[in-house]
This record gives sequence, structure tokens and C-alpha cells, in this order.
Amino acid sequence: MTNATTLVDQYVAIWNEREPGQRAALIAETWTEDATYLDPLMSGNSAAEIDEMIAGAQLQFPQYEIRKLGAVDAHTDRVRFSWELVNVDDGTRLLAGTDFATIAEDGRLKAVTGFLDV
Amino acid sequence: MTNATTLVDQYVAIWNEREPGQRAALIAETWTEDATYLDPLMSGNSAAEIDEMIAGAQLQFPQYEIRKLGAVDAHTDRVRFSWELVNVDDGTRLLAGTDFATIAEDGRLKAVTGFLDV
Repeated sequence: MTNATTLVDQYVAIWNEREPGQRAALIAETWTEDATYLDPLMSGNSAAEIDEMIAGAQLQFPQYEIRKLGAVDAHTDRVRFSWELVNVDDGTRLLAGTDFATIAEDGRLKAVTGFLDV
Repeated sequence: MTNATTLVDQYVAIWNEREPGQRAALIAETWTEDATYLDPLMSGNSAAEIDEMIAGAQLQFPQYEIRKLGAVDAHTDRVRFSWELVNVDDGTRLLAGTDFATIAEDGRLKAVTGFLDV
């Protein structure tokens, strides 16, 4: 299995990568083409849709970035980790959540489900 | 969608149901036939295998029962909840964890991934 922490770090980097070509390259490296993403606010049913979805979220939150919270927990082909959405200017947290992922045989992400933490 | 809290309560009841006929009936009501379960300690790839898996866990922990911890969190067809494995005699906790589930279109569980909480 791909090192789960490395994979999560790449996943977080994608959410923060605002240069479209760089983001697309990172997505191709990190997600399978048929990957799915689903949380209470948004969804994507392919790597291309996930790219569009993340671009939309970046437009919605121009002053914010995602940061990993705590350690990555992984077993078999499953991973969970927590994150926060933080204002880059003053460090205040807008949202936090926990994501659950399934890793494909090739070591890339094939499915992520997100939940919001209160 | 089936009420997620009711579904989780049934799920927990199955882990604690030690009468084989009752447990099988509850499983048929709660899990799809092709349901999957995976945590760091065990797995099952059908409702029948999940039944066997739970029977094995009950033999391993005769003095323990599962209790739901906190509220059930659900969105779309996804659910998460936490639980503890408690000694029924003195209430001490042996293990705790968080499970993530996907609900089938018919309202039953089709996939559960478990993680252990420290």
C-alpha cells in the first residue's frame, strides 16, 4: 500500500493548489480516473469532476487553506484523517472535518467520503 | 433514506444478539446480502460471513457488549458513529472505535468500515 500519510498530504495539497495545471497534475497522480468524492456540501464522480469541484471550493473560499489535523489512521486499503479550513491571514478556523478514503490497488485514492466535525 | 440512527441501533443490537436465529433475522433486516465489513481485526464479504464474523467475536468476548457512543452523523447515503466494547459486569471499556457505513437504496447497510479509536 502507498504510504497513507504521503497520500493524505498530496490530497491536502490538491485542495490548496490554485494553479490549474499543477492541480490537474497532482490529481492525476493522487486520484484514479473513476474516483468519487462525497461530503455534505459537494460531490464529484470522476477525477475531472473532483478537479472542478475543488476549483469551485477555492473560488468560494479565496482566503482559506486546508490543513491536516493530527495523525493519519490507516488499515488494509482504508484511511481516515481530519482536517481544518483555516484563514491564511489570521489562522482562524472556519470548518473542520474527517474524511474516510479507500485506496485503489495502484495506490491512488478511489473514494473519499467527508463528514463535518462540530 | 432509512433513519440512520435506527439503522445504527439495529447494527449495534446485532453485535450483542447471541441467539443465532435472532441474530440471523436481524442481519437479514439490516444488511444487504452482498454487504461487506472491514476493520483492522476482521472482515466479512457477505451477510452470511458477517454473521459468522460476529459470532466469532462474541465467543472471543463473552463478557462484553457493544454500546453506541454519542450521536449518529449521516448525510446522503453515508453514516458514521462511534461505539465502545464494555464489560457487562463492571462497565469497564476494552475497546472503542468509529465506523463508517454506506446505505443501500433499499435502506439496509451495504458496507461498513471500522477504525479503532485510542
